[in-house]
Amino acid sequence: MKVIEGGVTAAKGFQAASAQAGIKYKNRTDMALVYSEVPAVTAGTFTTNVVKAAPVKWDKKLVQERETAQAVVLNSGIANACTGSIGDERNLYMARQVAQALGIETEAVLTASTGVIGMQLSQEPLERGARLLAEALDTSTEAGTRAAEAIMTTDTYSKQSAVQVEAGGTTVTIGAMAKGSGMIHPNMATMLSVVTTDADISKEMLQKAMSEVVPVTFNMVSVDRDTSTNDTYVAMANGLAQNAEITSEGADYEAFKEGLLYVSRDLAMKMAADGEGATKLFETTVLHAATQKDAVVLAKSVITSNLVKTAVYGSDANWGRILCALGYSGVDFDPEKVDLFIECEGTERLQLVKNGMAADYSEETATKILSADKITATADMKAGDAQATAWGCDLTYDYVKINGDYRS
Amino acid sequence: MKVIEGGVTAAKGFQAASAQAGIKYKNRTDMALVYSEVPAVTAGTFTTNVVKAAPVKWDKKLVQERETAQAVVLNSGIANACTGSIGDERNLYMARQVAQALGIETEAVLTASTGVIGMQLSQEPLERGARLLAEALDTSTEAGTRAAEAIMTTDTYSKQSAVQVEAGGTTVTIGAMAKGSGMIHPNMATMLSVVTTDADISKEMLQKAMSEVVPVTFNMVSVDRDTSTNDTYVAMANGLAQNAEITSEGADYEAFKEGLLYVSRDLAMKMAADGEGATKLFETTVLHAATQKDAVVLAKSVITSNLVKTAVYGSDANWGRILCALGYSGVDFDPEKVDLFIECEGTERLQLVKNGMAADYSEETATKILSADKITATADMKAGDAQATAWGCDLTYDYVKINGDYRS
Repeated sequence: MKVIEGGVTAAKGFQAASAQAGIKYKNRTDMALVYSEVPAVTAGTFTTNVVKAAPVKWDKKLVQERETAQAVVLNSGIANACTGSIGDERNLYMARQVAQALGIETEAVLTASTGVIGMQLSQEPLERGARLLAEALDTSTEAGTRAAEAIMTTDTYSKQSAVQVEAGGTTVTIGAMAKGSGMIHPNMATMLSVVTTDADISKEMLQKAMSEVVPVTFNMVSVDRDTSTNDTYVAMANGLAQNAEITSEGADYEAFKEGLLYVSRDLAMKMAADGEGATKLFETTVLHAATQKDAVVLAKSVITSNLVKTAVYGSDANWGRILCALGYSGVDFDPEKVDLFIECEGTERLQLVKNGMAADYSEETATKILSADKITATADMKAGDAQATAWGCDLTYDYVKINGDYRS
Repeated sequence: MKVIEGGVTAAKGFQAASAQAGIKYKNRTDMALVYSEVPAVTAGTFTTNVVKAAPVKWDKKLVQERETAQAVVLNSGIANACTGSIGDERNLYMARQVAQALGIETEAVLTASTGVIGMQLSQEPLERGARLLAEALDTSTEAGTRAAEAIMTTDTYSKQSAVQVEAGGTTVTIGAMAKGSGMIHPNMATMLSVVTTDADISKEMLQKAMSEVVPVTFNMVSVDRDTSTNDTYVAMANGLAQNAEITSEGADYEAFKEGLLYVSRDLAMKMAADGEGATKLFETTVLHAATQKDAVVLAKSVITSNLVKTAVYGSDANWGRILCALGYSGVDFDPEKVDLFIECEGTERLQLVKNGMAADYSEETATKILSADKITATADMKAGDAQATAWGCDLTYDYVKINGDYRS
């Protein structure tokens, strides 16, 4: 596997664009388009929130009923959630405008929105945006970057990732972009991610790869436990790499999945590191849990604890909070077996807890580790063979500032 | 039912005391004792955290195996959690010192601790504290207040409540004290609550009343979703009111339960209002949920959402976050049926959402309501007959400050 530059335009036959449609923001781009020159096999996973945004309902139906899609149009500023039947109409309008501008079917256009919940999209900016997007489509790396920028809300940097893998006798490229971790800004919703690949792969295997990758990447990220109404992760595979089609498990499928795993994990970690107000990426690995589910629940319980998150912010080796968060996760374990370690790049692993009690460690070293940009905590449960890693961030004054400020 | 002054010394035959034992704090009291002049029927509920503090393990066993207890000794400063067998020994030492000073059995003394996790209690302050406590025991209201003060950690005020009810042909008094909501301070754990009553009631009926009251009071409070290792709620009933013993359901049991419900809810709300860094009490009532469990889960999902909590801090009528929090709670419902209202004392209820979409309301009025000290949100699910109320608080800069500061 080779990590390369770029994002959604990295793979053959994909174009992207951004536009300043004037949906809600002034003086910035707020619509993005990802387009495949030929129909692309499409798979997707979507928010589990009962309250689903209009574009989520649209995409779910299309992904379920159709083999291929050819474009994804995204907007920032308004989430098109809690907007009733008008919201559904406006979403359809957005897809239709793009379809007309591209000369393709409306049902070949997936949609995604992020922004204020409860506000309606207006037709006029959507019409303008669709036209501008179609005109600006380009295969360059910069076009991919512009698309990734247009979907940002309170993200402080755009998020892209791309790799090449050898599959089916040739080089296959997988590129992706993403935005936002959780519900980020006042009224702003959403993590959105679009993957493009020139792999020739069946819909069934693409969906399978996605369903295996998501639980260990995007689903292991949390900034504030608030599952958005708009979460969308879609992949389009257009086959232009001309590899032998991947239609079953085997070496080619594994190679493709490894690439998809890389870009998904890369974007997931970037989202966690760029969480609202975050100053640090906080990774937690749980080792030797009794079951896989236990490992996942334990790791997530640690990274979502407000008390752990504030301790990470304060560079405080407050391990009692981590043990406490493991303890209330709902997983049964023997607290008197748990070992706990912390580390950062360039340091040795430091043991804080041995068999559920304080180990003999240097507070100074612990503070030094916890002052790094990226910190890893490892909890060894000594209960079985399962392990899981989750990614979160610290809880800071800026989180409160960003989310406590009045909408404007 | 009549609300009266005082706390754990309000009921007949109960004495209390505080002492400056020097466990961890300087210049403040850090041990409290509640004593019944005669053995008292005892019931308790304890943390569900797998990681249980030494006093929790001790109390659970005693409450399970014995009909009565006669004293509860509590300390602040050190939680005696994650302390292994030494922690168990120190807990036993604390109970034994108090028992000797009072001239009662060690197994008649319940214990409770709150403070730093992972630190060991020293014997010397415990010995001194036990002696001072026994000397200072007193039936006055002030003695009850001093006990409530000694168990505070980052609480900004002490928490007591007392009522009188008519049961079994006479007046029965129920008094209580409590501290802290969730895990509050760097390393500080614990909500602790002690109820004293002169009611003559069987152990079975006391435990039953407690188990009916806790789910709708203490279990409906959350400050930060972090379930402590030390949560303890114990009740002692010494029978000195000389009412006809309550041994079964009926009017007397209902009267007693109503009193217990009042003091428990009163303390629960005081804990939420005094959550870490909180400036506002935030109450959420869910109406017409399909099941009781749904109502509970929905109400708690709203009050524990960081995004809702920051919006309450910012006095921002950001209803999309409330709908979002209902939506990801795990409860299935029709989002297009939900109505949402907010209110505070002295205002009309304001409808923000009608059938899942924005109602026509004044942002100015909404901001005025959300600027109050106590705010109630009501979500009508229109799905059934169940309802539940939960209490939380806003998430503020001070929460981050209190919990992000380095332990000292």
